[in-house]
Amino acid sequence: MPYSAIATVPSAEPRHAIAAAFDAVRSHSCTLAAPLSDEDQCVQSMPDASPVKWHLAHTTWFFETMVLQPFMPGYRPVDARYAFLFNSYYEALGPRHPRPARGLLTRPSCQEVRQYREAVDNAIHRLLHTVDEAMLAEAARALTLGLHHEQQHQELLLTDVLHLLSQNPLQPALRPPADAPAARRWTPLRWLDQPGGEAVVGHRGDGFAFDNEGPAHPVLLRPYQLADRPVSCGEFLAFIRDGGYRNPQWWLSDGWATVNAQGWNAPLYWADADTAEPTQFTLHGPRPLDLAEPVRHVSLYEAAAYAAWAGARLPTEFEWEAAAPPATGDVWEWTRSAHDPYPGFQPFAGAAAEYNGKFMMGQVVLRGGSVATPPGHVRPTYRNFFPPSARWQFSGLRLARNL
Amino acid sequence: MPYSAIATVPSAEPRHAIAAAFDAVRSHSCTLAAPLSDEDQCVQSMPDASPVKWHLAHTTWFFETMVLQPFMPGYRPVDARYAFLFNSYYEALGPRHPRPARGLLTRPSCQEVRQYREAVDNAIHRLLHTVDEAMLAEAARALTLGLHHEQQHQELLLTDVLHLLSQNPLQPALRPPADAPAARRWTPLRWLDQPGGEAVVGHRGDGFAFDNEGPAHPVLLRPYQLADRPVSCGEFLAFIRDGGYRNPQWWLSDGWATVNAQGWNAPLYWADADTAEPTQFTLHGPRPLDLAEPVRHVSLYEAAAYAAWAGARLPTEFEWEAAAPPATGDVWEWTRSAHDPYPGFQPFAGAAAEYNGKFMMGQVVLRGGSVATPPGHVRPTYRNFFPPSARWQFSGLRLARNL
Amino acid sequence: MPYSAIATVPSAEPRHAIAAAFDAVRSHSCTLAAPLSDEDQCVQSMPDASPVKWHLAHTTWFFETMVLQPFMPGYRPVDARYAFLFNSYYEALGPRHPRPARGLLTRPSCQEVRQYREAVDNAIHRLLHTVDEAMLAEAARALTLGLHHEQQHQELLLTDVLHLLSQNPLQPALRPPADAPAARRWTPLRWLDQPGGEAVVGHRGDGFAFDNEGPAHPVLLRPYQLADRPVSCGEFLAFIRDGGYRNPQWWLSDGWATVNAQGWNAPLYWADADTAEPTQFTLHGPRPLDLAEPVRHVSLYEAAAYAAWAGARLPTEFEWEAAAPPATGDVWEWTRSAHDPYPGFQPFAGAAAEYNGKFMMGQVVLRGGSVATPPGHVRPTYRNFFPPSARWQFSGLRLARNL
Amino acid sequence: MPYSAIATVPSAEPRHAIAAAFDAVRSHSCTLAAPLSDEDQCVQSMPDASPVKWHLAHTTWFFETMVLQPFMPGYRPVDARYAFLFNSYYEALGPRHPRPARGLLTRPSCQEVRQYREAVDNAIHRLLHTVDEAMLAEAARALTLGLHHEQQHQELLLTDVLHLLSQNPLQPALRPPADAPAARRWTPLRWLDQPGGEAVVGHRGDGFAFDNEGPAHPVLLRPYQLADRPVSCGEFLAFIRDGGYRNPQWWLSDGWATVNAQGWNAPLYWADADTAEPTQFTLHGPRPLDLAEPVRHVSLYEAAAYAAWAGARLPTEFEWEAAAPPATGDVWEWTRSAHDPYPGFQPFAGAAAEYNGKFMMGQVVLRGGSVATPPGHVRPTYRNFFPPSARWQFSGLRLARNL
Repeated sequence: MPYSAIATVPSAEPRHAIAAAFDAVRSHSCTLAAPLSDEDQCVQSMPDASPVKWHLAHTTWFFETMVLQPFMPGYRPVDARYAFLFNSYYEALGPRHPRPARGLLTRPSCQEVRQYREAVDNAIHRLLHTVDEAMLAEAARALTLGLHHEQQHQELLLTDVLHLLSQNPLQPALRPPADAPAARRWTPLRWLDQPGGEAVVGHRGDGFAFDNEGPAHPVLLRPYQLADRPVSCGEFLAFIRDGGYRNPQWWLSDGWATVNAQGWNAPLYWADADTAEPTQFTLHGPRPLDLAEPVRHVSLYEAAAYAAWAGARLPTEFEWEAAAPPATGDVWEWTRSAHDPYPGFQPFAGAAAEYNGKFMMGQVVLRGGSVATPPGHVRPTYRNFFPPSARWQFSGLRLARNL
Repeated sequence: MPYSAIATVPSAEPRHAIAAAFDAVRSHSCTLAAPLSDEDQCVQSMPDASPVKWHLAHTTWFFETMVLQPFMPGYRPVDARYAFLFNSYYEALGPRHPRPARGLLTRPSCQEVRQYREAVDNAIHRLLHTVDEAMLAEAARALTLGLHHEQQHQELLLTDVLHLLSQNPLQPALRPPADAPAARRWTPLRWLDQPGGEAVVGHRGDGFAFDNEGPAHPVLLRPYQLADRPVSCGEFLAFIRDGGYRNPQWWLSDGWATVNAQGWNAPLYWADADTAEPTQFTLHGPRPLDLAEPVRHVSLYEAAAYAAWAGARLPTEFEWEAAAPPATGDVWEWTRSAHDPYPGFQPFAGAAAEYNGKFMMGQVVLRGGSVATPPGHVRPTYRNFFPPSARWQFSGLRLARNL
Repeated sequence: MPYSAIATVPSAEPRHAIAAAFDAVRSHSCTLAAPLSDEDQCVQSMPDASPVKWHLAHTTWFFETMVLQPFMPGYRPVDARYAFLFNSYYEALGPRHPRPARGLLTRPSCQEVRQYREAVDNAIHRLLHTVDEAMLAEAARALTLGLHHEQQHQELLLTDVLHLLSQNPLQPALRPPADAPAARRWTPLRWLDQPGGEAVVGHRGDGFAFDNEGPAHPVLLRPYQLADRPVSCGEFLAFIRDGGYRNPQWWLSDGWATVNAQGWNAPLYWADADTAEPTQFTLHGPRPLDLAEPVRHVSLYEAAAYAAWAGARLPTEFEWEAAAPPATGDVWEWTRSAHDPYPGFQPFAGAAAEYNGKFMMGQVVLRGGSVATPPGHVRPTYRNFFPPSARWQFSGLRLARNL
Repeated sequence: MPYSAIATVPSAEPRHAIAAAFDAVRSHSCTLAAPLSDEDQCVQSMPDASPVKWHLAHTTWFFETMVLQPFMPGYRPVDARYAFLFNSYYEALGPRHPRPARGLLTRPSCQEVRQYREAVDNAIHRLLHTVDEAMLAEAARALTLGLHHEQQHQELLLTDVLHLLSQNPLQPALRPPADAPAARRWTPLRWLDQPGGEAVVGHRGDGFAFDNEGPAHPVLLRPYQLADRPVSCGEFLAFIRDGGYRNPQWWLSDGWATVNAQGWNAPLYWADADTAEPTQFTLHGPRPLDLAEPVRHVSLYEAAAYAAWAGARLPTEFEWEAAAPPATGDVWEWTRSAHDPYPGFQPFAGAAAEYNGKFMMGQVVLRGGSVATPPGHVRPTYRNFFPPSARWQFSGLRLARNL
């Protein structure tokens, strides 16, 4: 089973296929962390980010809590105290360690967390071999949620490591500079006409989807145009050089306040944007800015300001979904849609009920996927979301305009 | 012309009718401020609120800037420095005094602001008598915007005064307790069926509307039910007594964080909610809680938590508008809709372009109107908006649920 | 009895002399407030400052609490709620209104506070006429404390009004510009030799003194020199122009952090220090900087940095007292001494025990007196004190150096 | 040469004795860090604390900067970037990494820092073998300062590790619980009479002392009494149980504000003080509170409040020094003296000028020494200092009173 198909494991798969999918996703997390020292994995660089070790432990706790405890009679947690340490935000599951203090957990050590992962992985394998047919389907559904959850944290692990390394004056790289992708060729932006009218949005069919992707429902759209690709670094640089960060006319009110309070004058991780040789800090270390590459690490505020400056706007999430642009493979794309519940929204049952529903206020939807997203993780109906001021994700934008 | 019709003054009205409408709205502001001393009018009780004097001066500056300067050749401002002091948030009109420092402006005095109002009122009258026919229509449109703007500030003046008086341990009243409305009779909540389907929302026709109310456009709605009245204080008290403020399961994530950070345990201005004799601080001073009265001074977070606890939800702004509930006359009703631009949204032209558009992020729509809203100010398409944590407005809620 | 002698009223004075002293001090407060509108008197410009109205009411409450209640049998407070509103910091006297919220008290009105003053003044007169001989001495001592207390607030009233007016972009003046003192003649600084050796410091004799001025005790001093006058604005300007605010070598560690956090680059109320025409905002409005005048509105940090730059240091409070420089009449002079208790320190008895003792940490002593100090209020042993970062007082410095 | 004598190495020692002293101090740092994982050594638990790795690197940079660069011709730093990363607060030595971000430095790794230490240690040995006689004395003086500096960081390393471990819900111990000292026998407090009079304080003689210990000078003291031992945990518990943390009468004004803002109700690291079985978190993990042991981890505010409650006071630093109590060996003892310069104070020459002088404001002197202080580090004239709110040091108190 190729990696890219893993995360869609349906419960109809035979047991060994499920186990293989599980192993593939779980080992990928370890592969991502492998180049990092225990010190790198332990530190938290800001309250919004989590230590790598925490990601590795939290996703493991998720399998213990959502799969092993409900479906494996007599299962005893590896360490009862981990429920307190590695619960992220599930109020129904009891008190938990405060998020901004995750980086203080020098114990359990990275080594102990690796052992924790191994113990839980073994238990999952035992479960898959022993669970009776009657419960297999339900257990596999819970397992599938756990795998998609782990994939989300794989991306977060990379965004959080990037932030940590960026804070170090030594500017260390996660990966060898030599492995960085080659510079691209820039192509002129083309506008793709979209007819509008009635479109059905939201997840349909049997495959896995998060609760916030449903239910599918019809919406009415006016005719519009969507750009054939995200905005490039070179284009965003023109906005900067035109004084874009200093001109309030392009900005939402909260955005302008944020720009001034934070002193923003370029996307996160850019340096020397006002010189002839701007650079960008990346997982491969600092690199000359690739002008043809999609701009990333911009907030919704910056995305909307750029769009206004360019005489365009951001698409709504339904305009994006209806047009179904080719998998972007580069950046998450900010839309102009609040992360609101779809009509008839039903949260996941049980402990996972808090997965998405309680974040349906103050968050903005991003669509697409990024270089940091695990292969096979996203769908056209996928609704990623972050607050409008967030910049440490691989977030960019695509333009839309009225017809 | 009855007061309630004033604010819809169309430019086709004869000059004297426009002048009468202008006088009616302007004098109402002074009537509201009349019971207050100069001290009461000068102080700012929190950054979100403004002094009464500032409201009186700002609305006057608005007429100077949006009407007199464009339409009255050779007009010279009463005081050139007022543009700096009394601009609220118009970046295009130059630098301005910081909002949290409005309460430091003991000069100009209340008396000088009253003279400022008089001078501008006189100039508007001169303009209405002298402007030539060709420009009258356009000038009247600008004047109409100024009147609706002033009416918005009339409501804010009351909400801000209420907050100021509530901060005083002496618990002073704006109006005599004897003038307070009599207690109501509670009626059981009834659910009104709504068919859903395609509905056209947004402002149509010739009357005045703010830019964020258009353009009108069709939306698709599922069948739903809407309550026949807002939630009452007695009903909200049951939520409190059921531990509603201490149970995270009812709350949005940001709401729960806010409840704990701010120590909320009842709506703003309530006291002794945990006793047999809860009270509410009002413009008439402290009063026993009227259980039949709509609950007010709740945030979106509290409104949504109550709705979840009650097994219902908040309506979207389109569900509200399509059902067109009878003018509520009591409280603004939180909807579950972000203050997003309508498809094809066009801001006002000129200096008023910043009126609403730049607040289309981080704000939630309220529909209806309140006891503090000037008569004739609202429409079924009216979109009021505040951040989800705001409580000092006359904000309550109405329940909806799926059919 | 001339005003300058009033505040030292000993209990041996006849009753009418005490009453005259009382009236003189009390009416001076009203004279200071007279040019201000009720709005000016109500607003609080920062947490460290208090509204004028609050000063007028607090000093009145002090007489009620420290004089009328203990010495006038059956005395009933003018308004029982004022004890909550106008207690400054006396924990032993019960809960009190929070300091940063003093500016929210639009009620009681200025007019009511003036009536409060009149009622208490009348009661004090009645007390002075009726108290029996046996208790007169003790009552007069309490009254004397109240008068010195009121004089302290007379100075604070001016410093706080200056701060309030300085925050107003209209730059209003408390007093007519024409009344401002004429520019001075600068004289070269001369060093006065001081022999050092054993010196007795602290208050002796029968006159009034605050508790922190005693007991008198001997100290040992090395020989030193003290400047014959405070540092002038022109001299301080030379420090600024030499980059003094940008060079860490002159600064205490906390001072350097404060300079950078607050963006200080000149004394408070200075403007255009980097031009040929620097100005200073004063109680007479903005004025060209008088280079010969003592520099004022500097923090201890700035005073110490200037002294280091000038190759000198600040005197200790004992060096200052032993040298007894001529009454400065211009600025309070920062010393290099913490506001620590003298050996054998005894706080005032009773409710006044909190007067000074609990502020003996984190405060630095200033000696001298200022243009804002009421005549007759200070003594050579007087210990004024403020935190090292305070700048809104009339605070300057005098240089010392080792011999 | 016994360890306890090492730190006083005078330049007259032969080269090999100096080298031995150097090795002894340097290896002690590594011994302290040895039980800690690389993760433990990398994390920073609060802005006031530093990571263990940072302490190990900073002290090494100090030798490079203060000894190798001035005295070893042609010396090239191990890594030129370390001057930026590991400078603590020396403004004259150029820009530096911000203190609160020290915990983000996952690189250089612990392993690299150990190599850094080894390289610098080798270079110091080469220097000691090669420096000519003429410069040896001066180099040895600089080296001696570096050794005393490293000893200060040895204590900080322990206090900072204790704080880090205390933040971990797993409550890990640095050292085996079995190694914890046995419970003590409590002895009744005895008062030792002190005659007062003239006393000479400050450092005299040839041995090493920090610049803030001089010059020696006479002071006048009143007769007083000093307790024969520090206040014990049991005695402090009585203060708590008498409501000491809830009664403002015992507290300095800033102390009372801090108690309420921070919610303090017991010394740092105490738990369950309101139960019959209070515990204390220590370097050996959580332990039952030893009632006979000196109380530690109290702020100056708590020390002064306890003393007031006990009808006593804290001694001044000169009262402490004149009485010369037996080496306490347990806790640093807060005095009632600000960390002010002695008359005629001269900072160290050169780059070390910033060592103590710029911290002579806002700091309070502690005398004595603690269980965490390296043997041989302290003297009767030693002036340790911290802000009055600091609690994470091994800080306790000894009572004094007037005779």
